Amino acid sequence: MTTRISFLNGQFVEHDKAFIHIEDRGFQFADGVYEVILFQQGRLVDGVPHLQRLFRSLAEVKIKHNFSQEQLIKIATELLAKNNLADASIYMQITRGATNRVPWCPQGLEPTLVMTISAAKKVSEEEFVAGLNMMTHEDIRWSRCDIKTVGLLASTLINQKAKDLGFNDAIFVRNGVVTEGTFSNLFFVDQNKNLVTKSADNFILCGITRNRILDLAQKNAITVIEKSFGIDELMQAREVFLSSSTLLIRPVTKIDNRIIGEGKAGDIATKLNQLYKDFIRQI
Amino acid sequence: MTTRISFLNGQFVEHDKAFIHIEDRGFQFADGVYEVILFQQGRLVDGVPHLQRLFRSLAEVKIKHNFSQEQLIKIATELLAKNNLADASIYMQITRGATNRVPWCPQGLEPTLVMTISAAKKVSEEEFVAGLNMMTHEDIRWSRCDIKTVGLLASTLINQKAKDLGFNDAIFVRNGVVTEGTFSNLFFVDQNKNLVTKSADNFILCGITRNRILDLAQKNAITVIEKSFGIDELMQAREVFLSSSTLLIRPVTKIDNRIIGEGKAGDIATKLNQLYKDFIRQI
Repeated sequence: MTTRISFLNGQFVEHDKAFIHIEDRGFQFADGVYEVILFQQGRLVDGVPHLQRLFRSLAEVKIKHNFSQEQLIKIATELLAKNNLADASIYMQITRGATNRVPWCPQGLEPTLVMTISAAKKVSEEEFVAGLNMMTHEDIRWSRCDIKTVGLLASTLINQKAKDLGFNDAIFVRNGVVTEGTFSNLFFVDQNKNLVTKSADNFILCGITRNRILDLAQKNAITVIEKSFGIDELMQAREVFLSSSTLLIRPVTKIDNRIIGEGKAGDIATKLNQLYKDFIRQI
Repeated sequence: MTTRISFLNGQFVEHDKAFIHIEDRGFQFADGVYEVILFQQGRLVDGVPHLQRLFRSLAEVKIKHNFSQEQLIKIATELLAKNNLADASIYMQITRGATNRVPWCPQGLEPTLVMTISAAKKVSEEEFVAGLNMMTHEDIRWSRCDIKTVGLLASTLINQKAKDLGFNDAIFVRNGVVTEGTFSNLFFVDQNKNLVTKSADNFILCGITRNRILDLAQKNAITVIEKSFGIDELMQAREVFLSSSTLLIRPVTKIDNRIIGEGKAGDIATKLNQLYKDFIRQI
Protein backbone atom coordinates (compact mmCIF):
# COMPACT_ATOMS: atom_id res chain seq x y z
CA MET A 1 0.00 0.00 0.00
CA THR A 2 1.50 3.30 -1.12
CA THR A 3 1.12 6.22 1.27
CA ARG A 4 -1.16 8.77 -0.36
CA ILE A 5 0.80 11.87 -1.31
CA SER A 6 -0.65 15.31 -1.93
CA PHE A 7 0.89 18.62 -2.90
CA LEU A 8 0.72 21.72 -0.77
CA ASN A 9 2.49 25.04 -1.31
CA GLY A 10 5.63 23.80 -2.97
CA GLN A 11 5.94 20.44 -1.26
CA PHE A 12 4.83 16.89 -1.75
CA VAL A 13 3.48 15.76 1.62
CA GLU A 14 1.76 12.76 3.13
CA HIS A 15 -1.93 13.36 2.48
CA ASP A 16 -2.88 12.80 6.12
CA LYS A 17 -0.38 15.46 7.15
CA ALA A 18 -1.41 18.14 4.66
CA PHE A 19 -2.77 21.10 6.58
CA ILE A 20 -3.63 24.71 5.80
CA HIS A 21 -4.02 27.55 8.26
CA ILE A 22 -7.41 28.18 9.92
CA GLU A 23 -7.34 31.71 8.49
CA ASP A 24 -6.80 30.58 4.93
CA ARG A 25 -9.26 32.60 2.85
CA GLY A 26 -10.43 29.38 1.25
CA PHE A 27 -11.62 28.16 4.65
CA GLN A 28 -13.18 31.40 5.91
CA PHE A 29 -14.60 32.94 2.71
CA ALA A 30 -14.67 30.27 -0.04
CA ASP A 31 -12.15 32.65 -1.58
CA GLY A 32 -10.60 30.17 -4.00
CA VAL A 33 -11.07 28.29 -7.24
CA TYR A 34 -10.40 24.76 -8.41
CA GLU A 35 -10.25 22.30 -11.30
CA VAL A 36 -10.62 18.54 -11.60
CA ILE A 37 -8.74 16.99 -14.52
CA LEU A 38 -8.55 13.40 -15.65
CA PHE A 39 -5.31 11.53 -16.22
CA GLN A 40 -5.68 8.81 -18.85
CA GLN A 41 -2.70 6.48 -18.91
CA GLY A 42 -0.51 9.20 -17.48
CA ARG A 43 -1.64 11.96 -19.82
CA LEU A 44 -3.90 14.86 -18.85
CA VAL A 45 -7.21 14.94 -20.72
CA ASP A 46 -7.74 18.45 -22.08
CA GLY A 47 -5.17 19.76 -19.63
CA VAL A 48 -4.66 23.04 -21.47
CA PRO A 49 -8.31 24.15 -21.58
CA HIS A 50 -8.72 23.12 -17.93
CA LEU A 51 -5.73 25.22 -16.90
CA GLN A 52 -6.90 28.10 -19.09
CA ARG A 53 -10.22 27.98 -17.25
CA LEU A 54 -8.41 27.83 -13.90
CA PHE A 55 -6.48 30.97 -14.81
CA ARG A 56 -9.68 32.64 -15.99
CA SER A 57 -11.33 31.79 -12.64
CA LEU A 58 -8.34 33.27 -10.79
CA ALA A 59 -8.57 36.42 -12.90
CA GLU A 60 -12.33 36.74 -12.30
CA VAL A 61 -11.85 36.67 -8.51
CA LYS A 62 -8.68 38.76 -8.84
CA ILE A 63 -6.32 36.32 -7.17
CA LYS A 64 -2.85 37.31 -8.33
CA HIS A 65 -0.37 34.49 -8.82
CA ASN A 66 2.78 33.49 -10.63
CA PHE A 67 1.76 29.95 -11.56
CA SER A 68 2.31 28.83 -15.12
CA GLN A 69 0.47 26.04 -16.92
CA GLU A 70 3.74 24.17 -17.38
CA GLN A 71 4.48 24.32 -13.67
CA LEU A 72 1.05 23.03 -12.66
CA ILE A 73 1.21 20.22 -15.23
CA LYS A 74 4.66 19.25 -13.95
CA ILE A 75 3.46 19.10 -10.34
CA ALA A 76 0.35 17.14 -11.32
CA THR A 77 2.40 14.65 -13.31
CA GLU A 78 4.85 14.16 -10.46
CA LEU A 79 1.95 13.66 -8.06
CA LEU A 80 0.53 10.99 -10.34
CA ALA A 81 3.84 9.14 -10.31
CA LYS A 82 4.33 9.47 -6.56
CA ASN A 83 0.92 7.84 -6.04
CA ASN A 84 1.62 5.05 -8.55
CA LEU A 85 -1.43 5.96 -10.59
CA ALA A 86 -2.05 6.11 -14.35
CA ASP A 87 -5.81 6.61 -14.68
CA ALA A 88 -6.66 9.20 -12.06
CA SER A 89 -8.39 12.45 -11.39
CA ILE A 90 -6.40 15.35 -10.07
CA TYR A 91 -7.95 18.05 -7.93
CA MET A 92 -6.23 21.47 -7.94
CA GLN A 93 -7.30 24.26 -5.61
CA ILE A 94 -5.87 27.75 -5.38
CA THR A 95 -7.03 30.20 -2.72
CA ARG A 96 -6.10 33.80 -2.03
CA GLY A 97 -3.92 32.68 0.89
CA ALA A 98 -3.99 33.12 4.67
CA THR A 99 -4.26 36.36 6.64
CA ASN A 100 -6.15 37.96 9.52
CA ARG A 101 -9.86 37.80 8.73
CA VAL A 102 -11.05 40.98 6.98
CA PRO A 103 -14.19 41.48 4.87
CA TRP A 104 -12.34 42.72 1.79
CA CYS A 105 -9.88 40.80 -0.43
CA PRO A 106 -6.37 41.61 0.77
CA GLN A 107 -3.66 42.05 -1.81
CA GLY A 108 -0.17 40.63 -1.76
CA LEU A 109 -0.88 37.32 -0.07
CA GLU A 110 0.92 34.17 -1.10
CA PRO A 111 -1.80 32.07 -2.78
CA THR A 112 -2.36 28.58 -1.37
CA LEU A 113 -1.95 25.77 -3.90
CA VAL A 114 -3.26 22.30 -3.12
CA MET A 115 -3.35 19.22 -5.33
CA THR A 116 -4.78 15.85 -4.42
CA ILE A 117 -5.09 12.83 -6.66
CA SER A 118 -7.26 9.73 -6.60
CA ALA A 119 -7.83 6.72 -8.85
CA ALA A 120 -10.32 7.34 -11.65
CA LYS A 121 -13.79 5.95 -10.98
CA LYS A 122 -15.14 3.50 -13.54
CA VAL A 123 -18.81 3.23 -14.40
CA SER A 124 -19.88 -0.29 -15.41
CA GLU A 125 -21.72 -0.96 -18.67
CA GLU A 126 -24.83 -1.85 -16.62
CA GLU A 127 -24.69 1.42 -14.67
CA PHE A 128 -24.22 3.39 -17.86
CA VAL A 129 -27.21 1.76 -19.56
CA ALA A 130 -29.46 2.04 -16.49
CA GLY A 131 -28.75 5.77 -16.18
CA LEU A 132 -29.57 8.17 -13.38
CA ASN A 133 -32.80 9.32 -11.78
CA MET A 134 -32.58 13.08 -11.26
CA MET A 135 -34.81 15.39 -9.29
CA THR A 136 -35.38 18.95 -10.44
CA HIS A 137 -34.60 21.67 -7.93
CA GLU A 138 -34.65 25.45 -7.89
CA ASP A 139 -31.19 26.82 -8.69
CA ILE A 140 -30.35 28.57 -5.42
CA ARG A 141 -26.71 29.25 -6.31
CA TRP A 142 -25.14 32.67 -6.82
CA SER A 143 -25.21 34.30 -10.24
CA ARG A 144 -21.56 33.72 -11.19
CA CYS A 145 -21.71 29.97 -11.79
CA ASP A 146 -19.31 30.53 -14.69
CA ILE A 147 -16.45 30.84 -12.17
CA LYS A 148 -15.32 27.48 -10.77
CA THR A 149 -15.05 28.53 -7.13
CA VAL A 150 -15.01 26.43 -3.98
CA GLY A 151 -18.25 28.15 -2.93
CA LEU A 152 -20.03 24.84 -3.48
CA LEU A 153 -22.35 24.66 -0.50
CA ALA A 154 -25.55 24.99 -2.55
CA SER A 155 -24.42 22.26 -4.95
CA THR A 156 -23.41 19.81 -2.25
CA LEU A 157 -26.52 20.47 -0.13
CA ILE A 158 -28.85 19.89 -3.08
CA ASN A 159 -26.86 16.84 -4.22
CA GLN A 160 -27.35 15.37 -0.75
CA LYS A 161 -31.02 16.41 -0.66
CA ALA A 162 -31.58 14.52 -3.92
CA LYS A 163 -29.98 11.42 -2.44
CA ASP A 164 -32.05 11.75 0.74
CA LEU A 165 -35.17 11.76 -1.43
CA GLY A 166 -34.13 8.65 -3.34
CA PHE A 167 -32.68 10.33 -6.45
CA ASN A 168 -29.13 10.09 -7.76
CA ASP A 169 -28.63 13.82 -8.14
CA ALA A 170 -30.44 17.04 -9.02
CA ILE A 171 -30.92 19.26 -12.08
CA PHE A 172 -31.05 22.96 -11.33
CA VAL A 173 -33.79 25.19 -12.76
CA ARG A 174 -33.51 28.98 -12.53
CA ASN A 175 -36.58 31.08 -13.35
CA GLY A 176 -37.92 28.23 -15.47
CA VAL A 177 -34.64 27.67 -17.33
CA VAL A 178 -32.81 24.37 -16.88
CA THR A 179 -29.20 25.23 -16.06
CA GLU A 180 -27.10 22.15 -15.18
CA GLY A 181 -26.55 19.35 -12.67
CA THR A 182 -25.08 19.98 -9.22
CA PHE A 183 -21.57 19.14 -10.51
CA SER A 184 -22.16 18.51 -14.23
CA ASN A 185 -23.49 20.00 -17.46
CA LEU A 186 -26.70 18.74 -18.99
CA PHE A 187 -27.56 17.76 -22.58
CA PHE A 188 -30.62 16.40 -24.28
CA VAL A 189 -31.41 14.93 -27.68
CA ASP A 190 -34.59 16.36 -29.17
CA GLN A 191 -37.11 14.58 -31.41
CA ASN A 192 -35.14 15.68 -34.49
CA LYS A 193 -31.99 14.08 -33.02
CA ASN A 194 -30.35 17.43 -32.41
CA LEU A 195 -28.02 17.64 -29.44
CA VAL A 196 -29.16 20.49 -27.19
CA THR A 197 -27.44 22.11 -24.21
CA LYS A 198 -27.77 25.41 -22.45
CA SER A 199 -25.81 28.25 -24.00
CA ALA A 200 -22.89 29.20 -21.77
CA ASP A 201 -23.51 32.31 -19.67
CA ASN A 202 -23.03 33.34 -16.04
CA PHE A 203 -25.58 30.75 -14.86
CA ILE A 204 -23.61 27.63 -15.82
CA LEU A 205 -20.04 26.45 -15.70
CA CYS A 206 -18.83 26.16 -19.28
CA GLY A 207 -17.55 22.59 -18.95
CA ILE A 208 -14.38 21.48 -20.68
CA THR A 209 -15.97 18.06 -21.22
CA ARG A 210 -19.14 19.82 -22.42
CA ASN A 211 -17.13 21.71 -25.03
CA ARG A 212 -15.30 18.58 -26.12
CA ILE A 213 -18.60 16.73 -26.53
CA LEU A 214 -20.00 19.57 -28.66
CA ASP A 215 -16.87 19.41 -30.80
CA LEU A 216 -17.04 15.63 -31.18
CA ALA A 217 -20.75 15.82 -32.02
CA GLN A 218 -20.19 18.39 -34.74
CA LYS A 219 -17.35 16.36 -36.24
CA ASN A 220 -19.66 13.35 -36.35
CA ALA A 221 -22.66 14.85 -38.09
CA ILE A 222 -24.72 15.50 -34.96
CA THR A 223 -26.36 18.92 -35.05
CA VAL A 224 -25.64 20.97 -31.94
CA ILE A 225 -28.00 23.59 -30.53
CA GLU A 226 -27.00 25.84 -27.64
CA LYS A 227 -30.02 27.60 -26.18
CA SER A 228 -32.18 28.09 -23.08
CA PHE A 229 -34.91 25.52 -22.41
CA GLY A 230 -37.34 24.59 -19.67
CA ILE A 231 -38.40 21.41 -17.90
CA ASP A 232 -41.29 20.68 -20.28
CA GLU A 233 -39.01 20.59 -23.29
CA LEU A 234 -36.50 18.47 -21.38
CA MET A 235 -39.17 15.92 -20.44
CA GLN A 236 -40.01 15.45 -24.14
CA ALA A 237 -36.43 14.54 -25.00
CA ARG A 238 -35.42 11.28 -26.66
CA GLU A 239 -32.34 11.21 -24.44
CA VAL A 240 -30.87 13.22 -21.57
CA PHE A 241 -27.35 12.96 -20.23
CA LEU A 242 -24.86 14.69 -17.98
CA SER A 243 -21.20 15.42 -18.58
CA SER A 244 -18.25 16.23 -16.38
CA SER A 245 -14.52 15.56 -16.32
CA THR A 246 -15.00 12.61 -13.98
CA LEU A 247 -18.46 11.38 -15.06
CA LEU A 248 -17.57 11.72 -18.76
CA ILE A 249 -21.04 11.07 -20.21
CA ARG A 250 -23.72 9.70 -17.91
CA PRO A 251 -27.24 9.04 -19.21
CA VAL A 252 -30.25 10.31 -17.29
CA THR A 253 -33.17 7.92 -17.68
CA LYS A 254 -35.63 9.41 -15.20
CA ILE A 255 -36.38 12.96 -14.12
CA ASP A 256 -38.59 13.42 -11.09
CA ASN A 257 -39.33 9.68 -11.40
CA ARG A 258 -40.73 10.09 -14.93
CA ILE A 259 -39.10 7.98 -17.62
CA ILE A 260 -37.11 9.82 -20.30
CA GLY A 261 -37.20 8.37 -23.83
CA GLU A 262 -36.90 4.60 -23.66
CA GLY A 263 -35.72 4.63 -20.05
CA LYS A 264 -32.21 3.51 -20.85
CA ALA A 265 -29.02 4.99 -22.30
CA GLY A 266 -29.88 6.35 -25.76
CA ASP A 267 -28.08 5.89 -29.06
CA ILE A 268 -26.53 9.34 -29.19
CA ALA A 269 -25.31 9.29 -25.58
CA THR A 270 -23.80 5.86 -26.22
CA LYS A 271 -22.19 7.02 -29.45
CA LEU A 272 -20.79 10.21 -27.88
CA ASN A 273 -19.50 8.25 -24.90
CA GLN A 274 -17.61 5.99 -27.29
CA LEU A 275 -16.31 8.97 -29.26
CA TYR A 276 -15.19 10.62 -26.05
CA LYS A 277 -13.44 7.46 -24.84
CA ASP A 278 -11.74 7.16 -28.24
CA PHE A 279 -10.70 10.79 -27.96
CA ILE A 280 -9.06 10.36 -24.56
CA ARG A 281 -7.34 7.17 -25.64
CA GLN A 282 -5.73 9.02 -28.52
CA ILE A 283 -4.34 11.99 -26.63
CA MET B 1 3.47 40.70 23.77
CA THR B 2 1.19 37.75 24.38
CA THR B 3 1.28 34.95 21.83
CA ARG B 4 -2.05 34.89 20.04
CA ILE B 5 -4.01 31.77 21.00
CA SER B 6 -6.84 30.22 19.02
CA PHE B 7 -9.04 27.20 19.60
CA LEU B 8 -9.17 24.23 17.26
CA ASN B 9 -10.98 20.94 17.79
CA GLY B 10 -10.71 20.65 21.53
CA GLN B 11 -7.41 22.43 22.03
CA PHE B 12 -6.08 25.89 22.65
CA VAL B 13 -3.21 26.33 20.21
CA GLU B 14 -0.81 29.03 19.11
CA HIS B 15 -2.65 30.88 16.38
CA ASP B 16 0.22 30.58 13.92
CA LYS B 17 0.21 26.81 14.40
CA ALA B 18 -3.53 26.24 14.00
CA PHE B 19 -4.06 24.12 10.91
CA ILE B 20 -6.94 22.17 9.42
CA HIS B 21 -6.75 19.41 6.83
CA ILE B 22 -6.74 20.29 3.12
CA GLU B 23 -9.82 18.09 2.70
CA ASP B 24 -11.80 19.86 5.38
CA ARG B 25 -15.25 20.42 3.87
CA GLY B 26 -15.00 24.07 4.91
CA PHE B 27 -12.00 24.50 2.62
CA GLN B 28 -13.27 22.49 -0.38
CA PHE B 29 -17.03 23.25 -0.34
CA ALA B 30 -17.69 26.23 1.98
CA ASP B 31 -19.53 23.56 3.94
CA GLY B 32 -19.59 25.37 7.25
CA VAL B 33 -21.18 28.17 9.25
CA TYR B 34 -19.92 30.87 11.60
CA GLU B 35 -20.73 33.61 14.07
CA VAL B 36 -18.94 36.74 15.23
CA ILE B 37 -19.82 37.86 18.76
CA LEU B 38 -18.63 40.83 20.73
CA PHE B 39 -17.13 40.60 24.20
CA GLN B 40 -17.73 43.76 26.23
CA GLN B 41 -15.62 43.85 29.39
CA GLY B 42 -15.44 40.09 29.42
CA ARG B 43 -19.13 39.46 28.79
CA LEU B 44 -20.66 38.23 25.53
CA VAL B 45 -23.06 40.67 23.91
CA ASP B 46 -26.27 38.82 23.02
CA GLY B 47 -24.38 35.53 23.27
CA VAL B 48 -27.52 33.41 23.53
CA PRO B 49 -29.24 34.67 20.35
CA HIS B 50 -25.93 34.42 18.47
CA LEU B 51 -25.48 30.81 19.52
CA GLN B 52 -29.13 30.05 18.78
CA ARG B 53 -28.56 31.37 15.27
CA LEU B 54 -25.35 29.32 14.97
CA PHE B 55 -27.31 26.19 15.89
CA ARG B 56 -30.05 27.14 13.43
CA SER B 57 -27.42 27.56 10.68
CA LEU B 58 -25.99 24.12 11.52
CA ALA B 59 -29.47 22.61 11.38
CA GLU B 60 -30.22 24.28 8.02
CA VAL B 61 -27.10 22.77 6.43
CA LYS B 62 -27.65 19.51 8.35
CA ILE B 63 -24.33 19.43 10.14
CA LYS B 64 -24.83 17.13 13.12
CA HIS B 65 -22.93 18.03 16.27
CA ASN B 66 -22.90 17.64 20.01
CA PHE B 67 -21.92 21.18 20.92
CA SER B 68 -23.90 22.95 23.61
CA GLN B 69 -24.24 26.70 24.08
CA GLU B 70 -22.64 26.40 27.51
CA GLN B 71 -19.64 24.59 26.09
CA LEU B 72 -19.08 27.17 23.33
CA ILE B 73 -19.45 30.07 25.78
CA LYS B 74 -16.95 28.39 28.12
CA ILE B 75 -14.39 27.97 25.34
CA ALA B 76 -14.91 31.54 24.11
CA THR B 77 -14.47 32.92 27.60
CA GLU B 78 -11.31 30.91 28.18
CA LEU B 79 -9.97 32.10 24.83
CA LEU B 80 -10.62 35.71 25.83
CA ALA B 81 -8.63 35.20 29.03
CA LYS B 82 -5.76 33.39 27.31
CA ASN B 83 -5.39 36.35 24.95
CA ASN B 84 -5.57 38.92 27.78
CA LEU B 85 -8.52 40.66 26.17
CA ALA B 86 -11.69 42.19 27.62
CA ASP B 87 -13.27 44.05 24.68
CA ALA B 88 -12.94 41.70 21.76
CA SER B 89 -14.74 39.99 18.94
CA ILE B 90 -14.79 36.25 18.81
CA TYR B 91 -15.08 34.34 15.54
CA MET B 92 -16.53 30.82 15.72
CA GLN B 93 -16.59 28.53 12.70
CA ILE B 94 -17.99 25.02 12.50
CA THR B 95 -17.61 22.90 9.36
CA ARG B 96 -18.86 19.43 8.47
CA GLY B 97 -15.35 18.05 9.02
CA ALA B 98 -12.68 16.46 6.83
CA THR B 99 -13.04 13.50 4.47
CA ASN B 100 -12.23 12.37 0.94
CA ARG B 101 -13.78 14.86 -1.48
CA VAL B 102 -17.25 13.75 -2.57
CA PRO B 103 -20.05 15.87 -4.07
CA TRP B 104 -22.64 14.96 -1.44
CA CYS B 105 -22.61 15.77 2.29
CA PRO B 106 -21.13 12.78 4.11
CA GLN B 107 -22.65 11.78 7.43
CA GLY B 108 -20.83 10.85 10.61
CA LEU B 109 -17.87 13.18 10.30
CA GLU B 110 -16.40 14.90 13.32
CA PRO B 111 -17.27 18.58 12.81
CA THR B 112 -14.36 21.03 12.82
CA LEU B 113 -14.63 23.78 15.46
CA VAL B 114 -12.43 26.86 15.20
CA MET B 115 -12.43 29.98 17.35
CA THR B 116 -10.22 33.01 16.93
CA ILE B 117 -10.35 36.23 18.89
CA SER B 118 -9.16 39.75 18.25
CA ALA B 119 -9.37 43.09 20.00
CA ALA B 120 -12.58 45.01 19.33
CA LYS B 121 -12.26 47.80 16.79
CA LYS B 122 -13.24 51.27 17.90
CA VAL B 123 -14.77 53.84 15.60
CA SER B 124 -13.89 57.42 16.51
CA GLU B 125 -16.54 60.08 17.00
CA GLU B 126 -15.29 61.78 13.81
CA GLU B 127 -15.58 58.60 11.76
CA PHE B 128 -19.05 57.96 13.14
CA VAL B 129 -20.29 61.43 12.25
CA ALA B 130 -18.66 61.44 8.79
CA GLY B 131 -20.33 58.14 7.89
CA LEU B 132 -19.73 55.83 4.98
CA ASN B 133 -20.04 56.24 1.22
CA MET B 134 -21.68 53.11 -0.16
CA MET B 135 -22.06 51.96 -3.74
CA THR B 136 -25.11 50.02 -4.80
CA HIS B 137 -24.49 46.64 -6.43
CA GLU B 138 -26.60 43.82 -7.78
CA ASP B 139 -27.03 41.12 -5.14
CA ILE B 140 -25.25 38.20 -6.81
CA ARG B 141 -25.32 35.93 -3.74
CA TRP B 142 -27.21 32.66 -3.43
CA SER B 143 -30.82 32.67 -2.25
CA ARG B 144 -30.21 31.38 1.29
CA CYS B 145 -28.60 34.47 2.77
CA ASP B 146 -30.51 33.72 5.97
CA ILE B 147 -27.94 31.01 6.77
CA LYS B 148 -24.66 32.40 8.07
CA THR B 149 -22.33 30.21 6.01
CA VAL B 150 -18.67 30.66 5.09
CA GLY B 151 -19.73 30.83 1.44
CA LEU B 152 -18.77 34.51 1.48
CA LEU B 153 -17.00 34.94 -1.83
CA ALA B 154 -19.67 37.19 -3.35
CA SER B 155 -19.70 39.44 -0.28
CA THR B 156 -15.93 39.78 -0.06
CA LEU B 157 -15.51 40.31 -3.82
CA ILE B 158 -18.12 43.08 -3.88
CA ASN B 159 -16.74 44.64 -0.70
CA GLN B 160 -13.34 44.82 -2.41
CA LYS B 161 -14.87 46.06 -5.66
CA ALA B 162 -16.50 48.93 -3.74
CA LYS B 163 -13.16 49.86 -2.19
CA ASP B 164 -11.44 49.66 -5.59
CA LEU B 165 -13.99 52.17 -6.89
CA GLY B 166 -13.43 54.56 -4.00
CA PHE B 167 -16.41 53.58 -1.82
CA ASN B 168 -16.31 52.20 1.71
CA ASP B 169 -18.58 49.25 1.02
CA ALA B 170 -21.58 48.16 -1.03
CA ILE B 171 -25.33 47.83 -0.58
CA PHE B 172 -26.88 44.83 -2.32
CA VAL B 173 -30.00 45.21 -4.47
CA ARG B 174 -31.89 42.12 -5.67
CA ASN B 175 -34.55 42.57 -8.34
CA GLY B 176 -34.96 46.17 -7.31
CA VAL B 177 -35.19 45.41 -3.59
CA VAL B 178 -32.46 46.68 -1.27
CA THR B 179 -31.32 43.72 0.82
CA GLU B 180 -28.33 44.55 3.04
CA GLY B 181 -24.64 45.47 3.12
CA THR B 182 -21.91 42.98 2.25
CA PHE B 183 -21.47 42.10 5.94
CA SER B 184 -24.17 44.18 7.64
CA ASN B 185 -27.88 44.92 7.80
CA LEU B 186 -29.25 48.22 6.53
CA PHE B 187 -31.73 50.67 8.08
CA PHE B 188 -33.16 54.00 7.06
CA VAL B 189 -35.19 56.72 8.73
CA ASP B 190 -38.03 57.95 6.56
CA GLN B 191 -39.46 61.48 6.37
CA ASN B 192 -41.92 60.61 9.15
CA LYS B 193 -39.02 59.52 11.38
CA ASN B 194 -39.99 55.87 11.19
CA LEU B 195 -37.13 53.37 11.37
CA VAL B 196 -37.31 51.12 8.31
CA THR B 197 -35.43 47.91 7.53
CA LYS B 198 -36.00 44.99 5.21
CA SER B 199 -38.27 42.29 6.59
CA ALA B 200 -36.27 39.16 7.36
CA ASP B 201 -36.55 36.45 4.72
CA ASN B 202 -34.17 34.16 2.82
CA PHE B 203 -32.49 37.14 1.12
CA ILE B 204 -30.94 38.70 4.21
CA LEU B 205 -29.21 37.53 7.34
CA CYS B 206 -31.47 38.30 10.26
CA GLY B 207 -28.87 40.15 12.31
CA ILE B 208 -28.71 39.79 16.08
CA THR B 209 -27.64 43.44 16.29
CA ARG B 210 -30.45 44.32 13.84
CA ASN B 211 -32.99 42.67 16.14
CA ARG B 212 -31.57 44.35 19.21
CA ILE B 213 -31.76 47.76 17.49
CA LEU B 214 -35.40 47.15 16.53
CA ASP B 215 -36.11 46.23 20.14
CA LEU B 216 -34.33 49.30 21.52
CA ALA B 217 -36.12 51.54 19.01
CA GLN B 218 -39.53 50.23 19.99
CA LYS B 219 -38.78 50.67 23.68
CA ASN B 220 -37.81 54.27 22.97
CA ALA B 221 -40.84 55.43 21.04
CA ILE B 222 -39.33 55.04 17.58
CA THR B 223 -41.78 53.43 15.16
CA VAL B 224 -40.31 50.42 13.40
CA ILE B 225 -41.34 49.28 9.92
CA GLU B 226 -40.07 46.02 8.40
CA LYS B 227 -40.76 45.91 4.67
CA SER B 228 -39.22 45.68 1.20
CA PHE B 229 -38.02 48.90 -0.39
CA GLY B 230 -36.02 50.04 -3.41
CA ILE B 231 -33.15 52.41 -4.07
CA ASP B 232 -35.39 55.40 -4.83
CA GLU B 233 -37.07 55.21 -1.44
CA LEU B 234 -33.68 54.76 0.24
CA MET B 235 -32.25 57.85 -1.46
CA GLN B 236 -35.10 59.95 0.00
CA ALA B 237 -34.27 58.91 3.55
CA ARG B 238 -33.46 61.38 6.34
CA GLU B 239 -30.81 58.94 7.58
CA VAL B 240 -29.31 55.62 6.54
CA PHE B 241 -27.15 53.34 8.68
CA LEU B 242 -25.68 49.86 8.82
CA SER B 243 -25.56 47.47 11.74
CA SER B 244 -23.47 44.43 12.60
CA SER B 245 -22.02 42.81 15.69
CA THR B 246 -18.68 44.48 15.12
CA LEU B 247 -19.79 47.73 13.41
CA LEU B 248 -22.60 48.26 15.93
CA ILE B 249 -24.32 51.22 14.22
CA ARG B 250 -22.51 52.97 11.38
CA PRO B 251 -24.12 55.89 9.56
CA VAL B 252 -24.18 55.97 5.77
CA THR B 253 -23.92 59.54 4.52
CA LYS B 254 -23.51 58.94 0.79
CA ILE B 255 -24.88 56.32 -1.58
CA ASP B 256 -23.38 56.17 -5.05
CA ASN B 257 -21.74 59.52 -4.18
CA ARG B 258 -25.10 61.20 -3.56
CA ILE B 259 -25.56 62.80 -0.16
CA ILE B 260 -28.13 61.24 2.16
CA GLY B 261 -30.09 63.58 4.44
CA GLU B 262 -27.74 66.17 5.90
CA GLY B 263 -24.62 64.28 4.92
CA LYS B 264 -23.64 63.38 8.47
CA ALA B 265 -24.73 60.99 11.19
CA GLY B 266 -28.44 61.64 11.88
CA ASP B 267 -30.25 62.11 15.18
CA ILE B 268 -31.87 58.69 15.25
CA ALA B 269 -28.69 56.79 14.32
CA THR B 270 -26.85 58.74 17.02
CA LYS B 271 -29.56 58.07 19.57
CA LEU B 272 -29.75 54.35 18.73
CA ASN B 273 -25.97 54.07 18.85
CA GLN B 274 -26.03 55.52 22.35
CA LEU B 275 -28.88 53.22 23.38
CA TYR B 276 -27.01 50.25 21.99
CA LYS B 277 -23.81 51.21 23.80
CA ASP B 278 -25.80 51.65 27.02
CA PHE B 279 -27.35 48.24 26.43
CA ILE B 280 -24.00 46.48 26.07
CA ARG B 281 -22.56 48.28 29.07
CA GLN B 282 -25.40 46.97 31.21
CA ILE B 283 -25.21 43.29 30.28
